[in-house]
Amino acid sequence: MKKSFLTFTLLLASYLLMANDGYKLWLQYYPLENPKSEYREILGNARVPGESPTLSIIKTELEIARSGFFGPATLQKDSNSPKLIIALKDTDPAINKNTTPEEMAVLGEEGYLIKKFSEAGQNKILITANSEIGLLYGTFKLLQTIQTGEQIPNTGLSNSPKIKHRVLNHWDNLDRSVERGYSGSSIWNWHRLPRHIDQQYLDYARANASLGINGVSVTNVNANALVLTPEYLAKAKALADAFRPYGIKLYLTARFSSPMEIGGLPTADPINAEVQAWWKEKTKEIYQYIPDFGGFLVKADSEGQPGPHNYGRTQAEGANVLADAVRPYGGIVMWRAFVYNEKTPDDRHKQGYNEFKKIDGEFRENVIVQVKNGAIDFQPREPFHPLFGAMPKTPLMMEFQITQEYLGHDTHLAFLAPMFEETLKSDTYANGKGSLVSKVIDGSLHKYPLTAMAGVANIGTDRNWTGHHFHQANWFAFGKLAWDPETRSADIAEEWLKLTFTTDKKFTEPIQKMMLASHEMVVNYMTPLGLHHIMARGHHYGPGPWVTGGGRDDWTATYYHKATEKGVGFDRTASGSDALGQYAPEIQKEWGNLKTAPEKFLLWFHHLPWDHRLANGNTLWDGIALHYQKGVEEAKANVAIWESMEAHVDAERFKHVLSFMKIQAEEAVWWRDACLLYFQQFSKMPLPDGVDKPEHDLDYYLNFNPKFVPGNG
Amino acid sequence: MKKSFLTFTLLLASYLLMANDGYKLWLQYYPLENPKSEYREILGNARVPGESPTLSIIKTELEIARSGFFGPATLQKDSNSPKLIIALKDTDPAINKNTTPEEMAVLGEEGYLIKKFSEAGQNKILITANSEIGLLYGTFKLLQTIQTGEQIPNTGLSNSPKIKHRVLNHWDNLDRSVERGYSGSSIWNWHRLPRHIDQQYLDYARANASLGINGVSVTNVNANALVLTPEYLAKAKALADAFRPYGIKLYLTARFSSPMEIGGLPTADPINAEVQAWWKEKTKEIYQYIPDFGGFLVKADSEGQPGPHNYGRTQAEGANVLADAVRPYGGIVMWRAFVYNEKTPDDRHKQGYNEFKKIDGEFRENVIVQVKNGAIDFQPREPFHPLFGAMPKTPLMMEFQITQEYLGHDTHLAFLAPMFEETLKSDTYANGKGSLVSKVIDGSLHKYPLTAMAGVANIGTDRNWTGHHFHQANWFAFGKLAWDPETRSADIAEEWLKLTFTTDKKFTEPIQKMMLASHEMVVNYMTPLGLHHIMARGHHYGPGPWVTGGGRDDWTATYYHKATEKGVGFDRTASGSDALGQYAPEIQKEWGNLKTAPEKFLLWFHHLPWDHRLANGNTLWDGIALHYQKGVEEAKANVAIWESMEAHVDAERFKHVLSFMKIQAEEAVWWRDACLLYFQQFSKMPLPDGVDKPEHDLDYYLNFNPKFVPGNG
Repeated sequence: MKKSFLTFTLLLASYLLMANDGYKLWLQYYPLENPKSEYREILGNARVPGESPTLSIIKTELEIARSGFFGPATLQKDSNSPKLIIALKDTDPAINKNTTPEEMAVLGEEGYLIKKFSEAGQNKILITANSEIGLLYGTFKLLQTIQTGEQIPNTGLSNSPKIKHRVLNHWDNLDRSVERGYSGSSIWNWHRLPRHIDQQYLDYARANASLGINGVSVTNVNANALVLTPEYLAKAKALADAFRPYGIKLYLTARFSSPMEIGGLPTADPINAEVQAWWKEKTKEIYQYIPDFGGFLVKADSEGQPGPHNYGRTQAEGANVLADAVRPYGGIVMWRAFVYNEKTPDDRHKQGYNEFKKIDGEFRENVIVQVKNGAIDFQPREPFHPLFGAMPKTPLMMEFQITQEYLGHDTHLAFLAPMFEETLKSDTYANGKGSLVSKVIDGSLHKYPLTAMAGVANIGTDRNWTGHHFHQANWFAFGKLAWDPETRSADIAEEWLKLTFTTDKKFTEPIQKMMLASHEMVVNYMTPLGLHHIMARGHHYGPGPWVTGGGRDDWTATYYHKATEKGVGFDRTASGSDALGQYAPEIQKEWGNLKTAPEKFLLWFHHLPWDHRLANGNTLWDGIALHYQKGVEEAKANVAIWESMEAHVDAERFKHVLSFMKIQAEEAVWWRDACLLYFQQFSKMPLPDGVDKPEHDLDYYLNFNPKFVPGNG
Repeated sequence: MKKSFLTFTLLLASYLLMANDGYKLWLQYYPLENPKSEYREILGNARVPGESPTLSIIKTELEIARSGFFGPATLQKDSNSPKLIIALKDTDPAINKNTTPEEMAVLGEEGYLIKKFSEAGQNKILITANSEIGLLYGTFKLLQTIQTGEQIPNTGLSNSPKIKHRVLNHWDNLDRSVERGYSGSSIWNWHRLPRHIDQQYLDYARANASLGINGVSVTNVNANALVLTPEYLAKAKALADAFRPYGIKLYLTARFSSPMEIGGLPTADPINAEVQAWWKEKTKEIYQYIPDFGGFLVKADSEGQPGPHNYGRTQAEGANVLADAVRPYGGIVMWRAFVYNEKTPDDRHKQGYNEFKKIDGEFRENVIVQVKNGAIDFQPREPFHPLFGAMPKTPLMMEFQITQEYLGHDTHLAFLAPMFEETLKSDTYANGKGSLVSKVIDGSLHKYPLTAMAGVANIGTDRNWTGHHFHQANWFAFGKLAWDPETRSADIAEEWLKLTFTTDKKFTEPIQKMMLASHEMVVNYMTPLGLHHIMARGHHYGPGPWVTGGGRDDWTATYYHKATEKGVGFDRTASGSDALGQYAPEIQKEWGNLKTAPEKFLLWFHHLPWDHRLANGNTLWDGIALHYQKGVEEAKANVAIWESMEAHVDAERFKHVLSFMKIQAEEAVWWRDACLLYFQQFSKMPLPDGVDKPEHDLDYYLNFNPKFVPGNG
């Protein structure tokens, strides 16, 4: 015992001394607080019957974890007297003896059951499932439970995903630039593929599997047709082969005009028989490379992308030609609803709904329409997209943006689970009260045959994957919510902190609190009270409420805030664009009435005079200013909170996070000062007490022109 | 003893189990073969008197190394009975007592002395120097000596650099693309600078310091004037501050037209008083940011870059205006000799010499002319540049290319020390026999007041820094040769292997042999017998002997190989371009005579019929073909050699290197088959026995068009 404690101490010292660059994500497997833990024995005596790539991953994972928790030692694989059995039914007698058919049935294809049992007077644990992937998921769950110091309930731990397709979307270009990527370049080195499979691809797949993510679209939705040529399909196949044992399917983005660009056809009209035949032939070819190819993700008729509109066809006609091609192989088409017209004929907020609502039911059964959380474009805060609840006959999936295009890019800590949760918990009233977006997404509300959730990845070549160490938590949160959209943000934050840093409450409690408040903080210093789309043009880095002109109204700020001396805000009630009319009557009533409208969406739906009185009696102008100030103060306070955590974090991550938090605090000031000076031109009202005077004049902010901002590729 | 052995075993297991991504480079500090080593005690009882950033780096380095060699434990810093003393003169009595003024004097500013001594019956070690940087260099040397298992001689180990400025050149753009970079994007995240200093910047500086590299030019020679604006100078200052404690000075590339682009002047004519004043003012500003700014690196009048030619001025007139600006602050100007005319009025080989030879002596004393190793452009093999030895009154420095623009990019193992060594050992005969290029460079031949060596970095965001794990050895080799240009390649390879992998001779001996033969192997399968510049256009990836036309003769392959039915090769003797006339008479005689001309440069200087007889009796055609075949066979054999090394290398690096070596073997075949099929059109001779038949026809290779090849930015 003494010797093992010594070893433990040495290892702990080693762990603390070691530079931690964050590459290990939430799979740190750092030494357990209690080195005498029963799990030393349990993890040391595991039986994982059978041989397969996935089973081999399970065995390796046990070895890595045990070595991390307790120090290196050889794992007794396939022990004769195992204390941990990880096995499918019929591959180990303990499974059949200690589980019931009912228990197994509820697990479905990907679920797992972790259960304690007793044999020959010994306490043991089993992990079982109906597939090897289920076993892998169960293994990760057990290891996460051990690391966080939680207990396996005596009744067992049974869990299965609520959503079928849990997919990361990489907006990665073939030249390794990443559109809206803020953590380096693409981790996919297409040049070296297919001949070099980098360890990082496996580490990436492993991290995803540890969250239950089971699909990856590796190429940008602003797609390059080249990826469908044999040269690139061979490369995609190599990635698919690497991902397969981790339960991850590969998807590709399909450029709608591919039949012309790489097929040599004169048209890409989806009604054209040659076009249809081309997609069928191309799809057949893809499945020869990748037998379990997941299917296509398509952005059409949006922001310059080709699509069915070019031929006067509907989005359903466009989607169906691809759906017909992949259907024989079990593939699906994720067709994005982010369709809007560059001429801005109508409030952009309304266009997706108008385009899709009318064709509900016209899609093939293997099409799922991928809808962003809100109707504009991943703003710091948006009301839920009115399509949710409005298409009972067409499966809809959620698209969240994990990468922080509008939320401060790489350096702003914004824990996004509360934002995701806010959308998922929104009530559509589609089938009466309680028709939550989460129930649209998990298929229960409309009995969708297909369910899915997509997250636009924030992953790049930065040594910690995500730029900001805390942005790892957003990848983590996406995975947890895609598995179960009702997971609580607070639980996600706590689990991530414990897996990633320490179980010490002196750290986890204040930092969890900081994380949970961080999204609201960013909204406060960027776009309080329903303001939106007031960021800089193009790269979207920093404030740009003055952005106007340039040929596309819906890409300007002035189009959205409509500030004049008379007031500010976008009237989307019946007296304005009536986008509100796309929501359920209950919502129209609540949000349309200034007395009941949630203040967080106030200027999203209403144009109001600067002296409009908020619920707390402040004028709108004062309210805006005080929200900005509050965001700034929180960002500054967070720096001090983090500084007090030095003893709990390794030096490398501590310093990295600290410098980013200082940047965030500075940029919060930038946002506040630039926006308030700009709007003050119209309000002509003084800053209320408690709001700091801006350091510079408005011209300074107007002329500030940062170069080479990342992610604008 | 037993307990410590147990700890050691555990750590060793931990080390072997751990994934090794190569980030630690040659600073692995893996457990020593002999855990009872006397160095356990010595490293555990160190005294490093004083406090400073550099001294703090020394203390940390001792801690990291001891923890790696022997397992974690707290280092007894400033022990009262120290066994290792690292101190400047007068800061510890042991230094003054055990060293002589003569010993100290020879060390110069950056040298170090490591010496054993005895005190109170105990064996001790001291490291001393005339500067803290010397102490740091000595510390690294001691730790490297311990890791490799070498001994400190009883007479002590005294060492100082032969070259004053040892500089890495990064061809990194401000958008993080890297021109001719094959290992990801630039490690400089300009967007996050100056507010975030990434740990990688410090790790980079530490790695450089461990080799004695003391300067870094962080921006591309194809320069962007923006880097001289206050916005970017603040960022550059942050890097300079990070590098300073590691003894590294920052240099910037200066775009010659900056006075116009960011200064608003109508001209950049170096004779213009306003231009001169602008550079003085700008330089003053730079030194306000960076008090020890190293100076400017300039590429002018080359490949589209602006320069003094635009105003009818000489290169000296151009360089001097910058030199005058930095001189008051102790800065220098590194002015590249890579100047050639886009109209190709003359053999490109001759243009640098013609441009610079005539202005020898016209440069300010703080200008050093940076000359590539050869006169064309970093070809797989080039004869030394004729400028070496030809400018006795102007300091010349060497520019080597560490990144493998023409040597297979990321995936081809080519250990470059032998190539560097071949150039450095070339005899210029400038002052008679023995006037080696190395003696030009170290200043001894012409008594240059300034000496320098530059290496174009191969560093990027790849997790192992350099793409190929073995390309770390080229960074290492550059550092070692910049410190002492007479270092032997074999010693460099051996030391690198021992520091990076293991001291086990079963590994180091065969792999050292493989490394030492690898450059010749690449020459064989790319450009044997003096062929050159026959790579693909633009990205330079793969073979392109057919490249012709396009408006710039000197960027084609046909211009250089001149293959016709009558023969092949570039006649640079008196009957041709007479580039050979730029060399010393002794060389002209030897290389101009087909009986004595080295075969490795044969087609570089001679145009010869296909049936010309080589020394071994083969026809030229057969010789070419057999060289290609030999290169291919070696590349294939290397795969097998590496496969047999699995037991000696961690799994991650083993697999990574293996897949790259397989790619290299495939691409060697590609080079051989494409080049032989192309040249066979002219030779009309059959492939000799022993040369494999090509898999495809010539059209296949002509039409092979790889997309998005890295480094072409």
